[in-house]
Amino acid sequence: MATRASNLQLTSLRDRFDSVRALTRNIAAPLSDADATLQPSPDASPAKWHLAHTSWFFETFVLRDHVAGYRPHDERWAYLFNSYYDGEGARHPRAKRGMLSRPSLGEILDYRSHVEEAVLNAFLLLPAPALDLLELGLHHEQQHQELMLTDLLATFAENPLGIALWPRQEAGPDAAESMGCARFAGGTVEIGHRGLGFAFDCETPRHQVLLRPFELADRAVTNGEWIRFIEAGGYQKPGHWTADGWEWVKRCDIRAPLYWDGGSDGDYVRYGLDGLHPVDPAEPVAHVSWYEADAFARWAGARLPTEAEWEAAAAGCDPLEGNQLDSAAAVRPRPAHGQARLKQMFGDVWEWTSSPFSPYPGFRAAEGTVGEYNGKFMVNQFVLRGGSCATPRGHARASYRNFFYPHQRWQFCGLRLARDI
Amino acid sequence: MATRASNLQLTSLRDRFDSVRALTRNIAAPLSDADATLQPSPDASPAKWHLAHTSWFFETFVLRDHVAGYRPHDERWAYLFNSYYDGEGARHPRAKRGMLSRPSLGEILDYRSHVEEAVLNAFLLLPAPALDLLELGLHHEQQHQELMLTDLLATFAENPLGIALWPRQEAGPDAAESMGCARFAGGTVEIGHRGLGFAFDCETPRHQVLLRPFELADRAVTNGEWIRFIEAGGYQKPGHWTADGWEWVKRCDIRAPLYWDGGSDGDYVRYGLDGLHPVDPAEPVAHVSWYEADAFARWAGARLPTEAEWEAAAAGCDPLEGNQLDSAAAVRPRPAHGQARLKQMFGDVWEWTSSPFSPYPGFRAAEGTVGEYNGKFMVNQFVLRGGSCATPRGHARASYRNFFYPHQRWQFCGLRLARDI
Amino acid sequence: MATRASNLQLTSLRDRFDSVRALTRNIAAPLSDADATLQPSPDASPAKWHLAHTSWFFETFVLRDHVAGYRPHDERWAYLFNSYYDGEGARHPRAKRGMLSRPSLGEILDYRSHVEEAVLNAFLLLPAPALDLLELGLHHEQQHQELMLTDLLATFAENPLGIALWPRQEAGPDAAESMGCARFAGGTVEIGHRGLGFAFDCETPRHQVLLRPFELADRAVTNGEWIRFIEAGGYQKPGHWTADGWEWVKRCDIRAPLYWDGGSDGDYVRYGLDGLHPVDPAEPVAHVSWYEADAFARWAGARLPTEAEWEAAAAGCDPLEGNQLDSAAAVRPRPAHGQARLKQMFGDVWEWTSSPFSPYPGFRAAEGTVGEYNGKFMVNQFVLRGGSCATPRGHARASYRNFFYPHQRWQFCGLRLARDI
Amino acid sequence: MATRASNLQLTSLRDRFDSVRALTRNIAAPLSDADATLQPSPDASPAKWHLAHTSWFFETFVLRDHVAGYRPHDERWAYLFNSYYDGEGARHPRAKRGMLSRPSLGEILDYRSHVEEAVLNAFLLLPAPALDLLELGLHHEQQHQELMLTDLLATFAENPLGIALWPRQEAGPDAAESMGCARFAGGTVEIGHRGLGFAFDCETPRHQVLLRPFELADRAVTNGEWIRFIEAGGYQKPGHWTADGWEWVKRCDIRAPLYWDGGSDGDYVRYGLDGLHPVDPAEPVAHVSWYEADAFARWAGARLPTEAEWEAAAAGCDPLEGNQLDSAAAVRPRPAHGQARLKQMFGDVWEWTSSPFSPYPGFRAAEGTVGEYNGKFMVNQFVLRGGSCATPRGHARASYRNFFYPHQRWQFCGLRLARDI
Repeated sequence: MATRASNLQLTSLRDRFDSVRALTRNIAAPLSDADATLQPSPDASPAKWHLAHTSWFFETFVLRDHVAGYRPHDERWAYLFNSYYDGEGARHPRAKRGMLSRPSLGEILDYRSHVEEAVLNAFLLLPAPALDLLELGLHHEQQHQELMLTDLLATFAENPLGIALWPRQEAGPDAAESMGCARFAGGTVEIGHRGLGFAFDCETPRHQVLLRPFELADRAVTNGEWIRFIEAGGYQKPGHWTADGWEWVKRCDIRAPLYWDGGSDGDYVRYGLDGLHPVDPAEPVAHVSWYEADAFARWAGARLPTEAEWEAAAAGCDPLEGNQLDSAAAVRPRPAHGQARLKQMFGDVWEWTSSPFSPYPGFRAAEGTVGEYNGKFMVNQFVLRGGSCATPRGHARASYRNFFYPHQRWQFCGLRLARDI
Repeated sequence: MATRASNLQLTSLRDRFDSVRALTRNIAAPLSDADATLQPSPDASPAKWHLAHTSWFFETFVLRDHVAGYRPHDERWAYLFNSYYDGEGARHPRAKRGMLSRPSLGEILDYRSHVEEAVLNAFLLLPAPALDLLELGLHHEQQHQELMLTDLLATFAENPLGIALWPRQEAGPDAAESMGCARFAGGTVEIGHRGLGFAFDCETPRHQVLLRPFELADRAVTNGEWIRFIEAGGYQKPGHWTADGWEWVKRCDIRAPLYWDGGSDGDYVRYGLDGLHPVDPAEPVAHVSWYEADAFARWAGARLPTEAEWEAAAAGCDPLEGNQLDSAAAVRPRPAHGQARLKQMFGDVWEWTSSPFSPYPGFRAAEGTVGEYNGKFMVNQFVLRGGSCATPRGHARASYRNFFYPHQRWQFCGLRLARDI
Repeated sequence: MATRASNLQLTSLRDRFDSVRALTRNIAAPLSDADATLQPSPDASPAKWHLAHTSWFFETFVLRDHVAGYRPHDERWAYLFNSYYDGEGARHPRAKRGMLSRPSLGEILDYRSHVEEAVLNAFLLLPAPALDLLELGLHHEQQHQELMLTDLLATFAENPLGIALWPRQEAGPDAAESMGCARFAGGTVEIGHRGLGFAFDCETPRHQVLLRPFELADRAVTNGEWIRFIEAGGYQKPGHWTADGWEWVKRCDIRAPLYWDGGSDGDYVRYGLDGLHPVDPAEPVAHVSWYEADAFARWAGARLPTEAEWEAAAAGCDPLEGNQLDSAAAVRPRPAHGQARLKQMFGDVWEWTSSPFSPYPGFRAAEGTVGEYNGKFMVNQFVLRGGSCATPRGHARASYRNFFYPHQRWQFCGLRLARDI
Repeated sequence: MATRASNLQLTSLRDRFDSVRALTRNIAAPLSDADATLQPSPDASPAKWHLAHTSWFFETFVLRDHVAGYRPHDERWAYLFNSYYDGEGARHPRAKRGMLSRPSLGEILDYRSHVEEAVLNAFLLLPAPALDLLELGLHHEQQHQELMLTDLLATFAENPLGIALWPRQEAGPDAAESMGCARFAGGTVEIGHRGLGFAFDCETPRHQVLLRPFELADRAVTNGEWIRFIEAGGYQKPGHWTADGWEWVKRCDIRAPLYWDGGSDGDYVRYGLDGLHPVDPAEPVAHVSWYEADAFARWAGARLPTEAEWEAAAAGCDPLEGNQLDSAAAVRPRPAHGQARLKQMFGDVWEWTSSPFSPYPGFRAAEGTVGEYNGKFMVNQFVLRGGSCATPRGHARASYRNFFYPHQRWQFCGLRLARDI
């Protein structure tokens, strides 16, 4: 989109701006001012903060930088709602985001309207770089939609009243299909963004990698399979674990996926956005860390796929399909079904890969503040692929690289097994 | 009040129940749901929690235990709003009180009304022990009124927007009167509660102590005097400090009272319930820890008084006078004025004493859960005397023993100097 | 000793200098260089450090300050072996004392000889203030003799090989005598140092206190009694504990006195300077914290004595009697025996009192660096009385105030019960 | 070596056993018992522990498992000297290795002799698997030789006396040659162990990787270049750093490589095994973390090489050349010299690569306890290549993968710059 966009492109962009902004607002709909203010951990953020930060992004990089005469809604708020852009100056400490009862949820929603109005007013006159930043801002906001859901889940999980933020959605099939696998011949493949449509900088440059023959499970690991791991002593035997993973299990007294409770007699319950419910054995396991995923795979005589294997395998899958986020609701992973060779590649759960999040060969961060987007996080994290039930439909793609630290598990993260052939 | 109360006493109790409950509600008036939900530190509590806990106290010890057929407003809330009574079973961890966006402020206010109605309905039939507990509950609630104000101050101090929760109140005199002192002959004196009117268990039994001759400053130490301490290097010279105090200064990088900022050129500002304002040199210094108060006294060639000295000296002062809490407002300590031999003995700032909080000779904790009230805290804390600008008028008395850890300073705590003669 | 000492006094001082220094050396006799280097915790110090620090004390305050032409053994060592005297400049961090393999034990012993020789050479010419400091240095060194033993115990307790630093000493009586008690009328008593002979500054000034009638157990609490406390669930019931004590029990998973192990079926073993042995029910319990002592007393329907009660009761006891340190050996508390009205008041175990360590009325710290000796520690600690099996005979006296934090228990600290009458 | 070894191979193995064991002993020669006992941090170990652990390795995996009738030197020592092999049962906590003054250095040296004698006695009868384990044990012991040196450096760096463990060695050239670079065409290359001679499991399987054209600096970055980075504000500007690296710099107040001091006016000194000396600008920088190396490279407009690039480039270099460990001495990195296309590829400093330590495609951990050797550490660490001045000559090879966490820097770790072409 380096040159002037066509009218059709502009109309599409504007439509997406409307719909993305509306979905964010809808996610906030059931929240009280207090709900939207809490921060469950330094890793997560208050809903109010997500609402404001995504607006600050447009206000700063589109309106302030590209719209003459724009005056910020409140000059003091840049300090509050900058996330991690050192180039944008001092900011409120991340771990203190949950101490801001003011501005209120209502004021933040007004801020959103103010920014939206200003963007729409300026829309037809925005220069090409501003349109690129607008596009970036929409993908950025979609990321925060997913984070809003997972951070709200973490927040309400702290409340002993077992609150259901949205009603429970209808159940899926009773049982998971047995796990099959698909074989891949390996060889030289290309991964990374093709250059059509939007991608984040970390997905580039597209490049060749050599793969050995491998097989990939045709669906994600289920809760039922995870319960077998627990019952086989998976959390008690160091031999399944990396040294760091085992240290984490002991120090944090980990015995099950996050949000699970109970378990004597295997009758686990889990807390979700729909409140407390029995663990469904047919659903994909979610809220497991890389340490756990890696240990499970070793226990199962398998391994995690590399991100290149995953991307090569996903070439034939449609990223618009699957259980992804379409509207504000109590999303949850659903049992695999259908006849596809590979099921659940997109949606349901982010799939941990064995690949550390590193720059692709030839990677260059963008110039300027926006260049802080991904590059500076390329250490100590692992890549996840495929999107989850909380990922807005249309946001994920085969080359998409999500990343988290190996102990983190408040996202909808699960796994799919791989093996050498 | 061990026997049946007279009608007059009953009417007075009922009036006080009305007025105490109303003041608590008024303190909450400017708060949004989010304001009332935040917890600034594990030492402090959300306003909503104070509102609920003080109601839980009446619900549990008066209604549940003494009113046949009373059904709790919500059975799950005892877990949430018990403070520290081990005898009342499991409770929500103190450090997690700030993670409860539900129940909402509105629901908590409904709870208050429900409890008030039930108490008033049962009032004429309450047995004598229940009336004693009602009396205890009112004093308990007054303590929480002060904590609400100081915890709100701590909460809003985290917000960089410098919010004024209430408007600034009219200023006091321009300058502090010079510090004089009153002399006391010592000898055998009696301290502790006399047995007329209400007192907490820790104020008993009344007993004799031997005092040596001493003198006591006729007013509290001011901000202006504290600035001189800072400018004389008070926070840089270990010789003024106890070993633990010095370790605290170094570890926490303490350079001024809590809520102070600035200070190059001595132009300090301080954050208060009325927002950000220049430090007034004439006002008593507040928000200093015992470590700081002790070091200041040593620097000044003086010492802190013992609690017995303070109480003996206060015998001639009226606990109903002074700058205390009468209504919800941006309270702050005010400059001393007047002709009294001892000024500011009640109100303005709690005064640190040199006395560790220990049981009086012959002290016995009450039987049952209510016996956990004070006794179990009699270690590692120091006694403060006299009440502050945030103490509800009528709550303090000469024998009143407040107590905090020597590093704590989010209360309105200051000091008055003493010397041996 | 403010004026010139008599020849007799000088001879006595010199003899004591010889014998105190010899005992320190003897305690170090079984130690390897490595044994003497280790530091088991930041609270404790390596034996080598004790050996050097006690010599640095004489070198600095006697030789450097009062002997013309004295040159320090090694100028760099003042930095290493100053303990906590801020007036003496920068010093090696306390928590890093265990990282000094050099100077070696041999070099430190040479340093001791060097200092001793210089002191003895200058002895007859020392001015009166230097003799006072020499006297102070001897009492200081006796304190470190006890610390050497308890720090060595803590060090070797970290070694799983169960090493006996000295051979086991012959056993005491088979059973403890049943606990009786002595009654005291109270009234006005005097406590504090009388002014004859040496005392630390914190024992002064002597002053009057008012006591109520009380009774005091005629011996210390035994291991057998402590096992009954454990078996009665003493460590499981919060009602016995102060709030801080209970928090400590939970956080540190405390289940028995320090150095005890085992305990299913009550067959406890304990590690001592004589290696691993079964717990002897007749011996006084040692290595319990103030939190534990206070909880035990409450469980037993009693309380800890105040330090004034203890001192008043000890008036008739001989501080030179009892199980105290006479020579380097595997000291341990021994069962009470004999016909005395009060047994074990001196020796066996330091007895926790209910008194926080605070300045006596009128207390003034000495001028100069030596004035840091005790005053700056008068916060957050509790007073213990009477000396232990590791206290050098002649060091303790009725007015002696030892002090430790309420969670500390690596000293030989136990308790004696008191009750109001 | 799966089949019976030839006599020539046996003789060579025996000679190497003699010489490797002798070098370890020589490294310990200047140590006192106390020197050998200290542990400077949980990451490092006491010299005594290294001496014992390397002997325990032979005792356990060779003598116990393959020599009939062998009785362990002391049955209690397996608990003390197992490092991290969960398969070998419980072990002394790593962080407590520095609390073992017993067994003494002398006893440990006796243990070494005992094990050596038993190995040599059994040598001619050892079955092939035992010879493989013996070979493994020698490489294992060489790793610990390097760790002994770096752990001793860390230990003595804690001692303010600035002790030189060995005399300073003669200086190198006065100035570093200017940095040039070598170009590589990329394409498909093979990396990993070829299968001739010994390698650790993590170097296998050999496999193909695709490389893009790149250039590699012809020598390591020097101290002089690092000082320019410091003076350019390298430690003050977040733009050079990964987010985690910047957090580490701020939290730990990092301002220079480890063991450097001073620096106002650029006159840095550094502590080494030869004591305190001025930083030599011509020597390679050592003791920098991955975070620092990565930031430096970004500042220099370059990047770290991948491990595959490094290994491909090293194909033409002789791993037996360079500044490596030949005898116990105050090793230090030396200025580059000579005409080679790539200098310092082996020896001087381990070179951080941009590659996380991950399993090679098709990697399988060995069966049994020895399989814990490397596989369980394949998370959160980065690969370093090439060996250092403290690596025993003959230990390194082109395929060798060393690994440390990105914040660790007590090894001799430096960097070499790379760039895309």
